[in-house]
Amino acid sequence: MLKGRHLIDPQDFTIEELESIFSLAEKIINNQEDFTHLCDGKILGTLFYEPSTRTRFSFEAAMLRLGGKVIGFSEPGSSSVMKGESIADTIKTVGAYTDIIAIRHPKEGAPKYGSLYSPVPLINAGDGGHQHPTQTLTDLLTIKQVKGTLSNLTIGLCGDLKFGRTVHSLIKAMSRYENIKFILISPKELQTPKYIKAEILDKKSLDYVEVERLEEVIDQLDILYMTRVQKERFFNEADYIRLKDSYILDKAKLKLAKPDLSILHPLPRVNEISMEIDEDPRACYFNQVKYGMFVRMALIAKLLGVK
Amino acid sequence: MLKGRHLIDPQDFTIEELESIFSLAEKIINNQEDFTHLCDGKILGTLFYEPSTRTRFSFEAAMLRLGGKVIGFSEPGSSSVMKGESIADTIKTVGAYTDIIAIRHPKEGAPKYGSLYSPVPLINAGDGGHQHPTQTLTDLLTIKQVKGTLSNLTIGLCGDLKFGRTVHSLIKAMSRYENIKFILISPKELQTPKYIKAEILDKKSLDYVEVERLEEVIDQLDILYMTRVQKERFFNEADYIRLKDSYILDKAKLKLAKPDLSILHPLPRVNEISMEIDEDPRACYFNQVKYGMFVRMALIAKLLGVK
Amino acid sequence: MLKGRHLIDPQDFTIEELESIFSLAEKIINNQEDFTHLCDGKILGTLFYEPSTRTRFSFEAAMLRLGGKVIGFSEPGSSSVMKGESIADTIKTVGAYTDIIAIRHPKEGAPKYGSLYSPVPLINAGDGGHQHPTQTLTDLLTIKQVKGTLSNLTIGLCGDLKFGRTVHSLIKAMSRYENIKFILISPKELQTPKYIKAEILDKKSLDYVEVERLEEVIDQLDILYMTRVQKERFFNEADYIRLKDSYILDKAKLKLAKPDLSILHPLPRVNEISMEIDEDPRACYFNQVKYGMFVRMALIAKLLGVK
Repeated sequence: MLKGRHLIDPQDFTIEELESIFSLAEKIINNQEDFTHLCDGKILGTLFYEPSTRTRFSFEAAMLRLGGKVIGFSEPGSSSVMKGESIADTIKTVGAYTDIIAIRHPKEGAPKYGSLYSPVPLINAGDGGHQHPTQTLTDLLTIKQVKGTLSNLTIGLCGDLKFGRTVHSLIKAMSRYENIKFILISPKELQTPKYIKAEILDKKSLDYVEVERLEEVIDQLDILYMTRVQKERFFNEADYIRLKDSYILDKAKLKLAKPDLSILHPLPRVNEISMEIDEDPRACYFNQVKYGMFVRMALIAKLLGVK
Repeated sequence: MLKGRHLIDPQDFTIEELESIFSLAEKIINNQEDFTHLCDGKILGTLFYEPSTRTRFSFEAAMLRLGGKVIGFSEPGSSSVMKGESIADTIKTVGAYTDIIAIRHPKEGAPKYGSLYSPVPLINAGDGGHQHPTQTLTDLLTIKQVKGTLSNLTIGLCGDLKFGRTVHSLIKAMSRYENIKFILISPKELQTPKYIKAEILDKKSLDYVEVERLEEVIDQLDILYMTRVQKERFFNEADYIRLKDSYILDKAKLKLAKPDLSILHPLPRVNEISMEIDEDPRACYFNQVKYGMFVRMALIAKLLGVK
Repeated sequence: MLKGRHLIDPQDFTIEELESIFSLAEKIINNQEDFTHLCDGKILGTLFYEPSTRTRFSFEAAMLRLGGKVIGFSEPGSSSVMKGESIADTIKTVGAYTDIIAIRHPKEGAPKYGSLYSPVPLINAGDGGHQHPTQTLTDLLTIKQVKGTLSNLTIGLCGDLKFGRTVHSLIKAMSRYENIKFILISPKELQTPKYIKAEILDKKSLDYVEVERLEEVIDQLDILYMTRVQKERFFNEADYIRLKDSYILDKAKLKLAKPDLSILHPLPRVNEISMEIDEDPRACYFNQVKYGMFVRMALIAKLLGVK
């Protein structure tokens, strides 16, 4: 039962609970008009202590498309009056007005702390570099939709695998499914942290390799999850110049890939995916945006217990 | 008849008019689902020339829970374009888009001035340190709900009674009911202003006492209305140190109180009510938040004339 | 067919297409309650890269009065997170959440560029000093409503005719109707640009005169479209002092006008229309605000293809 629960960490839900969310999301995708009044009379509170227009829009569109309504603030400025009080009091107050809360906060752990006092279900919409569980739900639903399964896949994760919270969460999440092979594509400086490898990949004896160049392995991939590589993160300029093009997906590299590869990206992108690829049927990142809205619709409905 | 009226000052309405609002609020509390479409097709404009997330949320949640909709701005920044024009023109313009307006403004009298030009009902949502009538309605409805009556009560007002506009309004408002005794609890520097005592309490020959320490009188109270005492408001540090703990409500002091005391606070609190009290059944301040939404629902419905 | 189209430039639509919008707007004005669910389940995205509270309110009220919903940002601050990405990606992302987009941007051409990537109809809500097509639609609908026709009119345009984008657009738009005479009232420094006169007025052999003083010609006008004259735009202070009162409409000047003159203004005004005139039945500028909302309702419905 997900009714009344909070979502703070992507691992909060069991595989079966996730499945019930994805299954509802799929029903919504196929019959959106059946769900336009599901949350009539319900209010979502969106508390964005740091701006994230993309995530906020996704939550708001999700609630509105379910017939619900939204109140909230979108950046710290307009919430200044509430700064004087503890997050516990703010959550109790907003919980008096709303039926469910999505909170984004620059401080790690703030959503968890808030959830201890919340009279309504609370969703972590991102806490600093820590967790962003609805991004992970989005990634999983996208994979499930484009591949029909979350098992038996070779997944390439490409770019900054050291600091990227989305890829860490995705590794943890996908490691719970069967027969997943990871190909970790990054410069040496930006490899997957040891604790992820030790605690997740090695512990579960998962199949993985680490490589430096996308072009070497792209032909093996079912899923390619791209992220950005920031110049500042390299140790020296020579390495950056030598490697930077390996982390840019363009038509030339895509020629080497399987015809049924699926390319994902959490967005926003800078130049790590060339715009010339956007029209390729393998480009799934704008569909991923839609799946993000649909999975949030399903999540909200489940936590409210209306479905 | 409240239809088409403005609410600028807490004293704008007669006792009977207030009663009709509280009576509707009570119906809404008991049968919320009967009111979810009462304001279908109506729009509330929220013009917050100074931020007040709490008050804005309360108004917005109120309108949304009645089936209405909201447009507005939440701080001066996003309204900058309208700064070039007179408040009269802004009100006329917003009144062309909306059915009712709630305005918060740092300048005393701005809502009153705006109401002269408004083609729709206008509610003062706070004008500087001047008036905040929907807070007073909130306080009255809370007392009525928790005590069942607005008469025959001993009310303790504790904290900064000199500068606090909410306590002044509450004294004025409660002085209209029968057999009310006030116990005014504050440091000497922050006593209730003479004009309140002369024009309200003495004029109406009301029963009141002034004391310095909460612990001396807490056992007599039916209602305890807490507010914050700011250190800057004391004349000297010695007084502050001597008295500060007298204005903090904790378990020890609460032990001296009646079992049916009701503790109110306009929120936000800093430390004047210890969090250890939040779970005590006598703590009513988070219910007060809910009553604030319900009384605004009733007020909006009455001014729009839909009920 | 307007379904699925964008609106970037006031000239994007034919006379017949405009007529279909005005005709729907008129139906909405006369039977507003018939249209309160026309856009149920639809979402408008309002992307205001520069603040314009007035225009944003008009779009939002329009969508809400059709039963639709709104997500968006109202100033660059809250959209900062999206700054890192191209406008093409932002439009694709927002287009994944919404059914129609209104975009305001300080850079000329940004809405046009965005429309090339938009999966949903996109409306230019103003791009710098360039275009503001829904203001032109507002002006046309207002004239049609107050005069019953868009032909056979003498239109006075008064104020800054050099830099005012609304008057340029209105000249272009009205030049498409029959038997329009323009009287261009401005200081010499702020006359209508040569290219407007050459490409529109002279090319179509339209009847127009240029004068310096409103009082000389006000008796001939069917429509008087007022705009502001900013002191900074004058070459020298002597001219400003000599002429400034000629561009202020007051009771004295209005005595010279026809009894059925209609006074329009895009608002906000500063002092170019005296407040003493607001109650005169010839003052149409606050009705114009309402027509702006109604014409946007009709436009949204047409682009969405729901009517």
